[in-house]
This record gives sequence, C-alpha cells and structure tokens, in this order.
Amino acid sequence: MINETHDPNLKSWIESANAADTDFPIQNLPFCVFTRACTYENVRVGVAVGDFILDVYACYECCLFDDESFNIAVSADNYCLDHSVMKKNKNLQAAFRRRLVEILSETADEETRKNVRRNLIPVDEVQFYLPAHIGDYTDFYCSIFHATNVGSMFRPDNPLLPNYKYVPIGYHGRASSIVISGTEIVRPKGQNRADENAPPQYIPAKNLDYEMEVGFFVGNGNELGEPVSIEDAEDHIFGLCLVNDWSARDVQAWEYQPLGPFLAKNFATSISPFVVTMEALAPFRVPAFERAEGDPQPLDYLSSDASEKTGGFDITLEVYLQTEKMRDANAEPFLLSRSNMKDLYWTIGQMLTHHASNGCNLQTGDLMATGTVSGNAKDARGCLLELTWRGTEPIQLPNGETRRFLEDGDEVIMKGFCEREGFRRIGFGTCRGVILPAA
Amino acid sequence: MINETHDPNLKSWIESANAADTDFPIQNLPFCVFTRACTYENVRVGVAVGDFILDVYACYECCLFDDESFNIAVSADNYCLDHSVMKKNKNLQAAFRRRLVEILSETADEETRKNVRRNLIPVDEVQFYLPAHIGDYTDFYCSIFHATNVGSMFRPDNPLLPNYKYVPIGYHGRASSIVISGTEIVRPKGQNRADENAPPQYIPAKNLDYEMEVGFFVGNGNELGEPVSIEDAEDHIFGLCLVNDWSARDVQAWEYQPLGPFLAKNFATSISPFVVTMEALAPFRVPAFERAEGDPQPLDYLSSDASEKTGGFDITLEVYLQTEKMRDANAEPFLLSRSNMKDLYWTIGQMLTHHASNGCNLQTGDLMATGTVSGNAKDARGCLLELTWRGTEPIQLPNGETRRFLEDGDEVIMKGFCEREGFRRIGFGTCRGVILPAA
Repeated sequence: MINETHDPNLKSWIESANAADTDFPIQNLPFCVFTRACTYENVRVGVAVGDFILDVYACYECCLFDDESFNIAVSADNYCLDHSVMKKNKNLQAAFRRRLVEILSETADEETRKNVRRNLIPVDEVQFYLPAHIGDYTDFYCSIFHATNVGSMFRPDNPLLPNYKYVPIGYHGRASSIVISGTEIVRPKGQNRADENAPPQYIPAKNLDYEMEVGFFVGNGNELGEPVSIEDAEDHIFGLCLVNDWSARDVQAWEYQPLGPFLAKNFATSISPFVVTMEALAPFRVPAFERAEGDPQPLDYLSSDASEKTGGFDITLEVYLQTEKMRDANAEPFLLSRSNMKDLYWTIGQMLTHHASNGCNLQTGDLMATGTVSGNAKDARGCLLELTWRGTEPIQLPNGETRRFLEDGDEVIMKGFCEREGFRRIGFGTCRGVILPAA
Repeated sequence: MINETHDPNLKSWIESANAADTDFPIQNLPFCVFTRACTYENVRVGVAVGDFILDVYACYECCLFDDESFNIAVSADNYCLDHSVMKKNKNLQAAFRRRLVEILSETADEETRKNVRRNLIPVDEVQFYLPAHIGDYTDFYCSIFHATNVGSMFRPDNPLLPNYKYVPIGYHGRASSIVISGTEIVRPKGQNRADENAPPQYIPAKNLDYEMEVGFFVGNGNELGEPVSIEDAEDHIFGLCLVNDWSARDVQAWEYQPLGPFLAKNFATSISPFVVTMEALAPFRVPAFERAEGDPQPLDYLSSDASEKTGGFDITLEVYLQTEKMRDANAEPFLLSRSNMKDLYWTIGQMLTHHASNGCNLQTGDLMATGTVSGNAKDARGCLLELTWRGTEPIQLPNGETRRFLEDGDEVIMKGFCEREGFRRIGFGTCRGVILPAA
C-alpha cells in the first residue's frame, strides 16, 4: 500500500540520504545487522539511511521509540533480525517505519536530530552480518528465459520441461554456507568429468559462475501440515535482498542427475546485507508476468483475482565484473548484464504458497531465492553460463581480457534498484565477492 | 575400538537391560532428549537402558558424575544434544560411557543404585524430542540396489547413471519438517499429472511411500572452505538413528526434473529418538561394500587404506506395516522388508567427506541420511515403490488387505538392530508414524 512514507518530496536532514543516486533515501529504510568494525560490541540491528547505518537499539535506549517499537529494537540481542522484528504484524511494522521517517525527515526538531546523530555510523565503519538466522534455504528456478536458455544447451530439442509452466520449480539449498556480501569465495574442488572416456578427476572447479538472484525472507511461518493460501502468501514475507548463487558448472553437469545440484552450489551463497521491506517496495509493484498465448494459467491454488497478492516487482538487477587486472589499473567494474525481476514467470507469493502447499512448515528467517533472473535480451542474462553460452562465446572486457567463466581474483558485484516516475529511487546496496584460488 | 564396555558378560542391576531381546542393554546406552509426559519440566538429555530412560542431568545433580562429564549433563539446558555433548572429544565421550556402565552394571554399590534409581523413568512415561538442533539435513542415495531398481522403472535401458559409482549422490532435504518418531503424518497435497493429456491436479498424494534409511549426526563440524579428509571423517560423526524419508511418488514423478525432489519429500521426515553412538557400534563394523568386478575404485579423496576409517556397519533394518484394520483386530504388524546397512555402496565416512569436499561447512547437529537401504533380495527392498514395483505388484497382507502404497490409517514401524556372535545385541528402538487423511 502506497502511503505518506513513499512521498517523493520527503527529504532528510541527513544530506547523503537526499542524493539522487543513493540507494537509501528515507523512502527506503532497509534493515541490516552489524557491528562497528574493530570493536567487541554485540551485533545489532540497523537501518540504512544515506551513507549511514542508524543503530536502532541505541535509538531505543535514547528513548526515540515508544514501547511498541521495543521488540524491533531489542532483536539485536539475538544477533539477527529475528522473530521479534520479522514476525511483528504489519501494523507495528508500518508504525515503526512512520516513526523512522519522522525522526529522519527535515521536519525533525533539533533535540531529535541530536539524539539520532549520536547513533549514526558511517557505512564504511561497520561490519555486516547475516540479517537473520536462516533455518532453511530454498532456491527456485523462476525465470523462464533462464530455464529455456539452460535447457536448450543440454536438451536442444526440448529446452523447457513439461512441468515448468505448472510448477514453480525449486530445490533445497544449503543454509550453513550462506555468507554476507564481501566474504571471499574459495574456488571449490569437485569431481570434473571433462573426458567421458576417463574417470572423473577431483580438481579445482574450472567453470565457476555466479547467478544473479533475488532473495526473500520469511516473516511469519506456518505450522507443519497447514498450507498458506495465495491470498495470504505475502503476509508471510518480510523483505527482499540480493543473492549470488555461486555455481561450479563442471561439477554440476556431472553430479546433478538424478537428484539435482548439490556440491556445485553449496560451497557458498552470498547475500546483500540490507533487507528491503515489502512496504518500501510498494510503489514498485507490477502485474504478474504476462504468460504467452497458449500457456496454461496457474492452477487454482496459485491463482488469485487480487492482483496485488500475486504481482511482481519492477527491480532492475545489474551484474558487474572487476578482474584483478582491472582493480590494479583502477578500472571501473564492467557491466555484464541488466535484467529485471518483473520478467520472472512466477511471483514470490506463488513460490511461497507452492512451497507450503504440501504442508511444509516455513519458519521465521527462512530464505528463499528466485533462481537466476534473466530476461529475453542477450544482455539480460543473469549468469556466465548463459552470457558465454556455456563458454563458447567468451566475453570481451575493455582491457583486452576475456572471460568464459570466473578466474581467481575476479570480483562479482551485484546491484539492484527500483525507479518509477513520481517516486524516489530506492536501492538494495551491493552483493559482492572475490574469488580466491582453491585451497 | 572394541573395549571393556562391549563385554557381553556385563550385566546390569536393572533387570530389563539384561533381557535377550532388549534394544538397550548396558552395552548400548544411546542418547535421547525427553521430558516426563504431562509435566512442564524442561526437556533434558537421557540415556536409554532396558525399559527406562536415565535422566542424565538429574544424575549430575546427584553427583554421580565427576566434573569432566558436566558438559554432557548440562546440555539439557539447550533443549537438545547440543554442542557441549556432541563436540566433546572422543576421550571424554569414552570416559562418560565407562562411567555410565559403572553405575548401571551389577557391580555398582547400593548407594549408587539408590541415586540412579531415583532418576530412572519408565520409557512409556516420557515424551521424546528431536535429539539435536538440525541446522541442515542432507539425504544421500547410497544403495546401489535401490538406485538400480528405481532407475530401471524410469529408464529400463539405462538404470544406473554414469556418475553413480564415482559420486555419493546426495541432495539437500528440509530441516524444519523433521519430526520425532510417533508424530502423525498428514497426507500431503500436491500436483499430480496422471493424465498426460490433461493439466495436473492439486490433490491429496495418491502414491504415498516410506523410505527405510539410517541417519547420522555431525558432531564436530568443519570451517567453510576446509574439506574433511576421509581419514578424519568418522571423527566428525556423533552417532546414528533410524530415518523414514516419507515420499509422495506421484508428486515426485511430476516435479523432480531438473532440480530433484522437493515437495514430494519435504512435508515430513521422521527420525527415531535414540542416537546410537559410534562407540556402541564398534563391534558391528564390517569392511566397506565389495564392489563388483569391473567397478571403478573410489577416487583418492574417498579412499583410505585404513579400512576402519571407511568401513560399513552390520545393522539389520526392518520395516513393518500395521493397517487400521489390523490395529482394530489386534493383529501384529506385518514385516514388509529386512535389509542391512552393510549393503550400501558408499560408507557414511565417504558421504561426509564428499559433502565437505568442496569446502561446504558441516555443523554440529546436522543430520545426514543414507537414502533408502535396499538389498539385492526382493524382500530387502526398503520402500513400497520397489516392493510393489511402482504399484504394479500389490502386497498381500495376512488379513486379506492389499497395498500398492500407503493408505490413511496405516502405521509404518521401522526397527534396527545389530547382532554378532560373541557380542550383546543392541538396537535402535523404533521409528514410527501413522498416516492421517489430507487436510
């Protein structure tokens, strides 16, 4: 629901929050979990605004919030955005958002500003942590462009399997190896069978890839045995982040049948530190993907007449690459792709409802991801597998380097943002990771 | 290592622990987590002995253990067999086992017996809970007989995929829906596409099945990016339990390509309450499965000259069915199959080392399961899919009923035990669950 907190004319007394290109104007206010770098303080919940992180717990201690907000503030005690904040009802979350806007906007009085100012930490002085305790992690496969591209490499005659247009395909990922943006990624070793006439070898992965995805956190869960209706699905979603589903393609090709990807994926998954709330995203909702003529409609349990319950999001997603040589030469990261979440075949509401449709219990803090977000255009392909067509069409970088897959020292930088005429641009920050050589 | 705690002549002053058919003689002493039924006490760690559960924390309070055992005792505070007990080094675990044998064996003095007696609770007066906080759950597919049977139903010409003899195939399961034995299982709903010429339907699963598996808990974990050598693998395993990987075969057939089983499995997984320690199992170790002539040897990272590091377990596994009609008529459960864990193609050490071979971090409390344990014989098939050959050869029950797959009201009862000449029989207790109609 769009309300006064989305007013594009709202300005903050924190100048950097008013910059045209900031990801974090006061219309956004995403949550994060952090410590001040180089201190032994406990991690705590923060909110990003301009170039600062607002220490929410400290604000509470300064009496900037009333009692109702208490639970949001103290969730820091549990080292993550936990039950107390994510499970709160929408009314309390909305009230908290309004209060944040109040104390950060230019109408705030000097006494308030003074109290807030003490609790603003420059973003480059903080260390981020995973924003929630992620009990289970599920990855979907919801871009029909990605699925078609990948399918056509492996099954040219039959790229898209018959279940795709009925089932939001997903699988369980590994929760323990989800890491926060900035964590270095060690190139995994794994079984590679490049030569069909020789045994596989256990060697460092050769075809290391990223996947540009969007993640969403479960707020309220459901009981085992009790599905979630499509009408209620979004009430169970707290907010969104960026996800890099690092993938070892050579390992994947050899191991994935018949039970799906395993070691090709579970060595690391990076996520951005900021959880952009469903409320902040309200102005950027779009109708669900328009299915091609002849495509089946979703089954009843995945359909709703209320389009706002099953709609998509207009979120631009960019992937940049900076090689070691580029870094050494101070060259800007190179844009590899630009796709948009609105091109997903299934919505996050459909993913969640499908996930719980057999009674599977979702829990507060669970992370789900969309799968690679690719578009129809060639420059909207969200992974190297697609961009280089399995390595057969290497990418030419401005400095003369080429890439089939990721090399040691490469940094992948993902960005996401929303723009719409009549609204303030909001962003997701970055999700980044450098590849280290295999151990 | 076999030691004095495995002496078959050891007897307990608790008579039921000396019964020939008990699962829990003092040579076993598996851990569990429980409360006394109908009380509001905190859950606590127990050890099964004969027909009783020994309240370990209460024993500590009675000063039956010395300080070194303290951490094992107080793990009850954390509502599961947690880090403090599972991560302890083998020496401390061995010392604790010796002390338990001491206070429970017939050489114990009357004062000790009096103290222990106060803390023995009849097993039918307790409620069990999951024995650990299971962060991640991974299911393997390590019976070549099961893989060949299932493969030949779906790919008659090519039953076993080329990776099978090189890769311990596994996939991530759902941790949140793991339930303790005795929990009722609601028949899941899901997409069923029986008719290829019509759209799928979202209906209660028709082909509901069980899978007889063995689970193992991770004790000490490993850091992200740091593989575990095959020589060290078993040092990371705390103990074993029984697992029923409930499966909706109609859902599975439709959804599983290309990313593997998802909703067909994640509605529920049942585990037995007792964790039988690696030490208790020492007398029942056997060499790893003998590969057929012409089969490749495992790659180096999965091979060890020290056979005790990569060996199997001689554990008999039985599955019984009791239908509602049988229960009403007081008929005994019917034996569906008897298989043995020693017939697995891969050992649990190989599974663990493979899992961490790409640097994936395993954590204390993680559960891994073997996949369906089937043998070569027809009556050693560990699921109905195999036993009824996809429903084409229904099972005849003694009361005239037949089964292709599970019906509402059916109870599946799994048992596991070890027998060897010259040693006391030990058992795993039962893993059971009744099917309730779809919601």
